[in-house]
Amino acid sequence: MNAITPVILSGGSGTRLWPLSREAYPKQFLPLAGTATMLQATWQRVAAIAAHGPLVIANEAHRFVAAEQLQQVGAQPQAIILEPVGRNTAPAIAVAALEATGNDEDPLLLVLPSDHVIADEAAFHAAVRLAAAAAEAGKLVTFGIVPSGPETGYGYIKAAPGNGARAVERFVEKPDLATATDYVASGHYLWNSGMFLLRASRYLDELARFNPAMLEACRGAWQGARRDADFTRLDAAAFAAVPSDSIDYAVMEKTADAVVVALDAGWNDVGSWTALRDVSTQDSHGNAHRGDVIAIDCRNTYAYGEKLVALVGLDDVIVVQTDDAVLVGKADRMQEVKDVVARLKAEGRSEASWHRKVYRPWGAYDSIDNGARFQVKRITVKPGGTLSLQMHHHRAEHWVVVSGTAEVTRGDEVLLLGENQSTYIPLGVTHRLRNPGKLPLELIEVQSGSYLGEDDIVRFEDTYGRS
Amino acid sequence: MNAITPVILSGGSGTRLWPLSREAYPKQFLPLAGTATMLQATWQRVAAIAAHGPLVIANEAHRFVAAEQLQQVGAQPQAIILEPVGRNTAPAIAVAALEATGNDEDPLLLVLPSDHVIADEAAFHAAVRLAAAAAEAGKLVTFGIVPSGPETGYGYIKAAPGNGARAVERFVEKPDLATATDYVASGHYLWNSGMFLLRASRYLDELARFNPAMLEACRGAWQGARRDADFTRLDAAAFAAVPSDSIDYAVMEKTADAVVVALDAGWNDVGSWTALRDVSTQDSHGNAHRGDVIAIDCRNTYAYGEKLVALVGLDDVIVVQTDDAVLVGKADRMQEVKDVVARLKAEGRSEASWHRKVYRPWGAYDSIDNGARFQVKRITVKPGGTLSLQMHHHRAEHWVVVSGTAEVTRGDEVLLLGENQSTYIPLGVTHRLRNPGKLPLELIEVQSGSYLGEDDIVRFEDTYGRS
Repeated sequence: MNAITPVILSGGSGTRLWPLSREAYPKQFLPLAGTATMLQATWQRVAAIAAHGPLVIANEAHRFVAAEQLQQVGAQPQAIILEPVGRNTAPAIAVAALEATGNDEDPLLLVLPSDHVIADEAAFHAAVRLAAAAAEAGKLVTFGIVPSGPETGYGYIKAAPGNGARAVERFVEKPDLATATDYVASGHYLWNSGMFLLRASRYLDELARFNPAMLEACRGAWQGARRDADFTRLDAAAFAAVPSDSIDYAVMEKTADAVVVALDAGWNDVGSWTALRDVSTQDSHGNAHRGDVIAIDCRNTYAYGEKLVALVGLDDVIVVQTDDAVLVGKADRMQEVKDVVARLKAEGRSEASWHRKVYRPWGAYDSIDNGARFQVKRITVKPGGTLSLQMHHHRAEHWVVVSGTAEVTRGDEVLLLGENQSTYIPLGVTHRLRNPGKLPLELIEVQSGSYLGEDDIVRFEDTYGRS
Repeated sequence: MNAITPVILSGGSGTRLWPLSREAYPKQFLPLAGTATMLQATWQRVAAIAAHGPLVIANEAHRFVAAEQLQQVGAQPQAIILEPVGRNTAPAIAVAALEATGNDEDPLLLVLPSDHVIADEAAFHAAVRLAAAAAEAGKLVTFGIVPSGPETGYGYIKAAPGNGARAVERFVEKPDLATATDYVASGHYLWNSGMFLLRASRYLDELARFNPAMLEACRGAWQGARRDADFTRLDAAAFAAVPSDSIDYAVMEKTADAVVVALDAGWNDVGSWTALRDVSTQDSHGNAHRGDVIAIDCRNTYAYGEKLVALVGLDDVIVVQTDDAVLVGKADRMQEVKDVVARLKAEGRSEASWHRKVYRPWGAYDSIDNGARFQVKRITVKPGGTLSLQMHHHRAEHWVVVSGTAEVTRGDEVLLLGENQSTYIPLGVTHRLRNPGKLPLELIEVQSGSYLGEDDIVRFEDTYGRS
């Protein structure tokens, strides 16, 4: 098999799995279907058949978490390409193909969303091998999922009769139930999975043919990219000008070389809480529960509880509890979670996009309590992590170290604080927090002042390029 | 109308309304059906027809909250009689009758559970007036609710034909649906409400006749009671020896003088979340939501949210979210909440009986975060409130005042701290916290140590008699 470069698309915002998944820390970064996160599992699934580390396309806002999660599983990405805005899959794959061909190489690109589940890895690898032969021959291969039922939530692909890589007769939009039932009965239709295998140059050629403006705009954004140690940052203005489109519309439905390889490997796109229920281990009554859940006589429920969740007499209901929001819905209505998120956004509520616990390159903070003129945060700093040198105009801060060691810069002083030691940062005093130790540092911060917004921060210096 | 003394029974534990109601702070102390708590509403409902402040029977553990809530609505109780353990209604009413007749008076006792809703106060007063005439004549009056349907959750009373105070033909246990339907169709049956009107001496006489051992045991507990400013504390050993029984079994089913007065006044015993839904203001789709609730296409739901609750496509589902637990159940199954509480108790979980926020005579504390060797509490002290003079063997405490003024005794020092000031109480140092001001004091306490249980406290002195 020829050299395969995985292209992992990690730009999604995962709003259909709110409140666990939120824009600022979405689905692909969560361990929804196992102990690894979905991004990590996506890499692990292809590591054995990849000739190189992956090309990862991620949202600029997720750069630190993406890099850290890939590092944790030893992915050694060739590049983490950062999109300043989302422009759908056609441009994302275009910049990946430009990056892949930048050294006069021309690998096969295995394009994978970062948030799917595939239960049968061996069957997946076999399908990739079949697809690779076709891609070598210049075909643009899409993977079509062998339907397990008349799903109305997916697009379908009609394949020509035969075996192996079959010509695509047509792509069809999400059908109604009657149509879906006919499709499945016919045996000619597969679900459109959003996974592809194609030679980088062939994709660029076809894009040049069907959508030259898009390709040129992508090339501009890629040529203007700033590169630092970990990241390839696309030129923001240029990428913002790229038209938004899917690879299906922009290329696959137009090219004469589209083929489809059938995949029957326990695939699931985990597109809703109900889908997650269906791929989770269930008890004999169809219940799948994670976390601290007590149930009395329930059937077909999914529950996720960070604290105690008690269920009584429910059938086909989903319950998801996080530290600042609870979602409860009928299983067949969970696609409408996106309407909840839309309403929260319209109301300007932070729960739409942010978790209570916010991840930063140095660690995380969690707002555990607040009142009229105060806020309490639990701050975790990784070993070696350093917050920016900063100052606040409207608040003083009390810090109590509860675990690990803190190096605190306060004005001209530098203090070393251990467990059960505290300090006070008066309003207006320049300060910095660092974990000089080998264990995580945890401290409780009590903020006191008339304005406690995150934007009351003057950054003088920052290790992570944020000042 | 003759002198009426309300007897308010406040000993219940309210587990069927878990997780909002818990043993340590149950249903009757919550504003479930309005802005006043149910105990307060019970007093306000009878204040206009009462000749005296109420006799209140409460659990020893609830003494401070009961006294404070009654004081807030100007109830001026004749006595707050404290039960060290619950012994059901017959003994509770017996000690109330002993207390009421202690000064050679013999009032009519209007016995009222503290956790019912009555929508139509005028109709209730009219029924009490009708009952008073019968009670004056020596009858033991029970109030029978005119059924709104064939409820299987209540006992029934068969009344003799006629109007006004009618003889009780018989009491019947909770029936099955077919029987309940027959009862309601017959027009002769009323729901057993648990409310009574009876002359104190008549009740004592009848109890002496049918259950002399119970009366003597109650008399012993009452004669041995310790009385202080607010409370009549029944003798613990004596009251523990009292047999447990309801007034229905112990007296009403045996006396020849039982009569029933019909009550049609929007009564509801709020015996489950579903009952609370049914007495709450509903939108045009039958939904009743309190707190921070967003719903998309729901019907007949009840939701209570202390933080954000989002509902999607639900029908006839109840959702109750508190800071440490979420309950979700099918409306017609909510009686089984008691099974949830039983299971939590069996597992030794504090959520069975305690809220995260714990009320004390001086104020409250709320455990907002914790880890392996630390705990963070938000402590609220009422104006004038004083915590005990105390010491801990296993933890140090950092205190940051975030609102109001604190007087801190620390060893031999006394400090006055305002907003944004802090202090440190080392392990082993005697300390005390007081609010000397006119506004509530709020502070954040960070505990650090190897053992953080509530029982690591040595009390040297306590304003509330707890040392």
